Amino acid sequence: MRADLGLIGLGVMGRNLSLNLAHHGFTVAVYDRSSDRVGQLLQEPADGRAEIVGTGSLPELVAALKRPRKILLLIPAGPGVDQVIAALLSYLEPGDIVIDGGNSHYKETNRRGRMLEAMGLSYLGVGISGGAEGALRGPSLMVGGSRRAWELTRDLFMKIAARVEATPCCAYVGPEGAGHFVKMVHNGIEYGDMQLIGEVYLLLRELLGFSAAETGAVFREWNNGELGSYLLEISADILNKKDAATGNPIVEVIADRADQKGTGQWAAQAAFELGVSVPTINAAVGARFLSALKEERIKASEELTWVAPRYEGDPAELLPAARAALYAARICTYAQGFALLKAAAAAYRWELDGGTIAQLWRGGCIIRAKLLTGVKEAFAGEPELPNLLMAPYFKKEIEAAQSGWRRIVGLAAQQGIPVPAISSALAYFDSYRRSFLPANLVQAQRDYFGAHGYERLDRPGTFHTDWQTKEETVHSKPLQR
Amino acid sequence: MRADLGLIGLGVMGRNLSLNLAHHGFTVAVYDRSSDRVGQLLQEPADGRAEIVGTGSLPELVAALKRPRKILLLIPAGPGVDQVIAALLSYLEPGDIVIDGGNSHYKETNRRGRMLEAMGLSYLGVGISGGAEGALRGPSLMVGGSRRAWELTRDLFMKIAARVEATPCCAYVGPEGAGHFVKMVHNGIEYGDMQLIGEVYLLLRELLGFSAAETGAVFREWNNGELGSYLLEISADILNKKDAATGNPIVEVIADRADQKGTGQWAAQAAFELGVSVPTINAAVGARFLSALKEERIKASEELTWVAPRYEGDPAELLPAARAALYAARICTYAQGFALLKAAAAAYRWELDGGTIAQLWRGGCIIRAKLLTGVKEAFAGEPELPNLLMAPYFKKEIEAAQSGWRRIVGLAAQQGIPVPAISSALAYFDSYRRSFLPANLVQAQRDYFGAHGYERLDRPGTFHTDWQTKEETVHSKPLQR
Repeated sequence: MRADLGLIGLGVMGRNLSLNLAHHGFTVAVYDRSSDRVGQLLQEPADGRAEIVGTGSLPELVAALKRPRKILLLIPAGPGVDQVIAALLSYLEPGDIVIDGGNSHYKETNRRGRMLEAMGLSYLGVGISGGAEGALRGPSLMVGGSRRAWELTRDLFMKIAARVEATPCCAYVGPEGAGHFVKMVHNGIEYGDMQLIGEVYLLLRELLGFSAAETGAVFREWNNGELGSYLLEISADILNKKDAATGNPIVEVIADRADQKGTGQWAAQAAFELGVSVPTINAAVGARFLSALKEERIKASEELTWVAPRYEGDPAELLPAARAALYAARICTYAQGFALLKAAAAAYRWELDGGTIAQLWRGGCIIRAKLLTGVKEAFAGEPELPNLLMAPYFKKEIEAAQSGWRRIVGLAAQQGIPVPAISSALAYFDSYRRSFLPANLVQAQRDYFGAHGYERLDRPGTFHTDWQTKEETVHSKPLQR
Repeated sequence: MRADLGLIGLGVMGRNLSLNLAHHGFTVAVYDRSSDRVGQLLQEPADGRAEIVGTGSLPELVAALKRPRKILLLIPAGPGVDQVIAALLSYLEPGDIVIDGGNSHYKETNRRGRMLEAMGLSYLGVGISGGAEGALRGPSLMVGGSRRAWELTRDLFMKIAARVEATPCCAYVGPEGAGHFVKMVHNGIEYGDMQLIGEVYLLLRELLGFSAAETGAVFREWNNGELGSYLLEISADILNKKDAATGNPIVEVIADRADQKGTGQWAAQAAFELGVSVPTINAAVGARFLSALKEERIKASEELTWVAPRYEGDPAELLPAARAALYAARICTYAQGFALLKAAAAAYRWELDGGTIAQLWRGGCIIRAKLLTGVKEAFAGEPELPNLLMAPYFKKEIEAAQSGWRRIVGLAAQQGIPVPAISSALAYFDSYRRSFLPANLVQAQRDYFGAHGYERLDRPGTFHTDWQTKEETVHSKPLQR
C-alpha cells in the first residue's frame, strides 16, 4: 500500500502537518535530511502513527508514493527549495505534483511553477497559516498554481484544513504564485494587527498606568465583541502570564526588540511595486526596525525629551476610545490588504476573489477575526467592491468608532506616545475619503522643476507651464514628451 | 582637436548639460538616435556653441573623442541603457570610461560596473539632480563607481556643478552604484518634503480658508527663515501663479493626481530591504498612490463623512504651529534619509560620508535647503552620528518646534484632515526617543503562535515559553532552533 503524500522537512510545521494528515486517514511518507527527526516523529505519541511511513532518502520517499506522486515541501524559503526540487527531479515522472508549503516569495513560486510545468510536472505554492498549533489541528490553506494539481489534492487539503461553520478554510485562489501572494498579504495584515495591539497596550500603560494584567483583562473583555480575534486573545493570555524566574508579568522581562522573518517586508515591497498604499502594514514593519535600535533609543530617551505622559480624564472614557481606535485601525489594515490583493489580481490577471480569501482567513490562521465574516459578506454583496471602507457594514462600524479613534491619535500626539500604525490608518481613511488631496501642488512642483507636465481638472490633455516667467499669466500647452 | 567628452541622449537634461559643459570650455561631442535633436542643439542660441560637435552615429561619436574616451549617457533608466552600452562596446578600448548620468537603479549600476570593469573599461554611475535648470546652470553631482574614472573626470564634473560658498556640490561618494543610491535617497527625501509642503497647504486651506495666494505669501515669508529651501520657494511661486485660461490660481485647475517615475518607490523598497524605518518617505509615496484614485475618492467623499473642518482659534496662533510642524517633520525626513545611507554604507561597505553628501545637496539639487548646512556641521562634529535627531543643533530645533508640531497632528486628526507625512514623522520621532516600545508584546505574540523565541532584558540567550499551559508560572528555557 503506497502513501497518499510525501512530505519533506520535519520542522515543527512538517511534523504537525504529518500528524494532522495521518489523523485524517491519509498515509504520509516523510523524509528529512536529519534522520533523527524522522525517528522522533515515528515515536510521537499521537493518533494515526501507523499512517506515517519514515523514509531515509529522496528515492525511497518517491518510491513509497502512489502515482501521480504528490510531494509537499515544508522547508525554509530560499535556495534550499530549489536544491530539493533539483534533487527530486531525477526520481519524478510526468504528471507528478510538487507542492511548496513554505513561505516562499510569490515570484520564486511563479518561476518554479513555469520551470516544472515545462518539464511536464505540476506545481502548487500553498500558503499555510496557523503556526504549530494550526498545522496540527487545522491550518488555513491558500492554494495557488496548477489547477490540475489542485483537483488531485483538493480532498486532502480540504480535510486537514480548519473549519468555520463546517466550511473548510482552504481554497484554490489562483494560478502561479497566487497562493503565496495571498499568504504574504495575510502576514502583512498580521504585522499590522500585532503592532496595533502593541500600541494600545502602550497607551493603556502610559496614559492610565495599567499593569500588564489590567490590560490583559481589558483585552479579554474586548475579545468578546467586535474585536474578537486570535491575536487579541493570545495577547490577553500573554499579558496575564507571570514569569517563573522573577514572578513579574512575563511581557515585562521580554526584550522590546522585535524580529521578523521577511514576509511583512515583502508585502510592503510588493505594495510599492504594485502602486498600492498600505501605510499601516508599512508602519508595523518599520516599528519592528526601530524597536531593534534599543541601544540608540535608550540614549535618545535621555536627550530628546517631552512632558511625561499624563492623562487626567476618566479612564472609563479613554477605554472606549482606545477600543474604537483599535477596531477602526484594524478595519483599515484589512482594507489595505484587500486593496493589495485587488491590485495583484489586476496586474497579474489572477482573478483573486475577496470573498473566498476572507473565508480562508476566518479560521486556522493567525489573523482569524470576527470582522472577516463582515469582509466575506461585503464581497458577497458586491464582488467588485473597490475598497472595504465602502462596504455598508464597515462604513457603519467606522462611523461609530471615528470619534474615539481621532481622540486617541490626538491624545497620543500631545502626550508623546508613538502610535504609528493607529495614526497611519487614520491618515489612510482621511485620505481615501477626500475628493480633494494636495497632489495638485505636488504635480505643479514636478512640472516646475522637471517639466513632467500635469493634467487639468477642466479639460483633457497634458499641460506644461513656463514657471520661470515673471508675468502673472502663463501659457499652458499640451506637453511635448 | 578631439572632444573632452561624448554625450549620448539629448533630452532636456542632455541638452542642458552639453551647454553647461561648453560654457565651461569643454568640447562635447553629442549624439542622439534622433538626428533632429542633434541639429536643434547646434542651432541653440547659447554660449559656447562652438564647443559642441554633432555626430551622426556611435562610431562617429567615439572617433571624435580624446583618449581615454569619456562617454556620458543621459538616457532613460531601463534596458535602453544596456542596449546603448552593448552597442558602444565594439568601438571602445581598454581604459575608456562609460558614465551613466540617468536615474538607474543602483543594483543595475552595480551589475553594469562589474561587467565593464571585467572588460577593462571603467564605469561611473552619477546621480544628477537639479532638473532642467540645474543641468544648465549647475547641478548637484553624486558620483559613484570606479575611482580611477573619477580621477580622470573630476575636473570636468567639479567645474559644471553648482557651488555653495565656492565649494562645488559634487563629490565621489563611493564605489559601485553608490552614486545612484545617494541620488535615490535624495529623491526619497524630495518625495517626503513635497508631501509635507502639500499637507501644510491643505491645512491652511481647510482650517483657515486661505486662498492659494495667501498660502503662497506665507510660504514666501517662511522661506526666509529656517525653512529656506528650493521646494518651498517654488511652492510659493506656484501658489501665486494665475492660470491664463481661467484667471484662477493655477493650482486650482491642476488635477490632484500625482504621478511618479519610480525613484521614491525604490527608496522605500531599499529601506525595507535594508531594515531601515523611513515612514515619511513611505507615506509620501503612498499619498501619491492614493491621489491617483480620484474617482474612488470622489465616491468615498460622499459616503464616509465627518464634521466639516473648522478652526475657531486665532490664525496667528495656528501659523507658527504649522511652520513648526513642517520644519520638525522635514528634519525627521532628512534623518530617515541619512539613516538609510548609513545602513547602505554598512551593508555594502561603501563608507558613505554624511557630511560630504550634505555638502553635495546644499546646492544645485531639488532638496537644497538651509538645514543642510546644519546637517553638514552635524557630521563634521560627529562623523559617526547615529541619527540626525541626536545632533545638538537639530535636537534644539526640534525641541522648539515640538509643541506646535504635536498641536497640528492632533488638530488634523480631530478635523479629519489627512497629514500622513507630518504624523508619520512625529511617530518616528516619538518612537526613536523612547527606551521602551511595545515590541516586547510583539515578540511574545511571535513566540506564542510561531515558537520564534524571544530575548529577555535580564539575561542573555533566546527563550521560549509554553504559552498553552494553564498554570500561571511558566518554564523559560533557551530555544532549540
